[in-house]
Amino acid sequence: MTRGRFITFEGTEGVGKSTQLETAAATLEGLGIDYMVTREPGGTPMAESIREMLLATREEPVHETTELLLMFAARSQHLYNRILPALSAGKWVLCDRFTDATFAYQGGGRGVSRERIALLENLVQGDLRPDHVILLDAPVETGMARARKRGELDRFEQEALAFFQRIRDAYLERATEMPGRYHVVNAALPLEQVTESVSALLSALSKLPVAD
Amino acid sequence: MTRGRFITFEGTEGVGKSTQLETAAATLEGLGIDYMVTREPGGTPMAESIREMLLATREEPVHETTELLLMFAARSQHLYNRILPALSAGKWVLCDRFTDATFAYQGGGRGVSRERIALLENLVQGDLRPDHVILLDAPVETGMARARKRGELDRFEQEALAFFQRIRDAYLERATEMPGRYHVVNAALPLEQVTESVSALLSALSKLPVAD
Repeated sequence: MTRGRFITFEGTEGVGKSTQLETAAATLEGLGIDYMVTREPGGTPMAESIREMLLATREEPVHETTELLLMFAARSQHLYNRILPALSAGKWVLCDRFTDATFAYQGGGRGVSRERIALLENLVQGDLRPDHVILLDAPVETGMARARKRGELDRFEQEALAFFQRIRDAYLERATEMPGRYHVVNAALPLEQVTESVSALLSALSKLPVAD
Repeated sequence: MTRGRFITFEGTEGVGKSTQLETAAATLEGLGIDYMVTREPGGTPMAESIREMLLATREEPVHETTELLLMFAARSQHLYNRILPALSAGKWVLCDRFTDATFAYQGGGRGVSRERIALLENLVQGDLRPDHVILLDAPVETGMARARKRGELDRFEQEALAFFQRIRDAYLERATEMPGRYHVVNAALPLEQVTESVSALLSALSKLPVAD
């Protein structure tokens, strides 16, 4: 059995990750590739409970180290109970956010040191990294306007525009550092063009030989 | 303002930690020392929610790394939101379990490597360690019989006797390695004698000069 590919979708609020995950799923469907769609934080009942805990508005201040540990606790459940079994069964895994989001949000956004995040990444994941990161990139103002239209903003979304700018910068910096793993899609273009880019990208990835 | 002392109570199930925490509190009361009693995992509303998540019986298997990260997430909230503010205000903190329990339960009991636990200990606590660890030690059979009398056993307590033996061994090993910090009390003796030992110990500790 050939191991499936692990593909993550990243980007700031409102860049259209959910829509493009659907595009990607439809593309794989058309190619006859078995796949699973999931999201972070979450993906298992316990990890979803941790997600609720993270996103809840609460009086008690949440220490940045607590937030970081909860993120990786949810990731550990998700990885061992769903992602790894699916990859081993030959399925492709399409995941809405993964550890790159932690580097962007907690690292770039909240100023948590990269070393602390990398330490937890190694603790939880060992050598496992996504095979491909699809970064949907758009100016922060564009994404925020879309997110606001969708309804109430949660604790993370309430943060200031400057915060999201730092997150976008962190994503783009990682994309520059890891050009082989990151695929940057211009999400500010009209929807049909973004969808076409993502679909073409997935088709191209399906033709790449498997690394291991 | 002199910083308060951080004193933790450790031991396997049924050794009488709750009773001896009351003894210790009464002793400090008598000595006119301001104190706070708390417990792990828990101690703040968010940390108590994490505790519930850890102790719940669930169908989904809980990966050992998830358990470890949740323990330290609860600890991070507890430490930054309650323990450190109390110590800074000059209060003594009496805590039912702390990181030594993680080394004993997850390390000794479940076989998680010490290095992984130490890595999270440093990440969350920096240099902070309890000033004194009071280890209530008794043969595992004695403690388990007492715990069973108290009612239903939770997920941790359902584990086999051999598991608790490994935990006791891990505690005793740490006590041997850190004789200055660990105070071992024989909890298999009749209650009045244990109570007297703990009370005498607290009085002695109150006379020690503060390290910093």
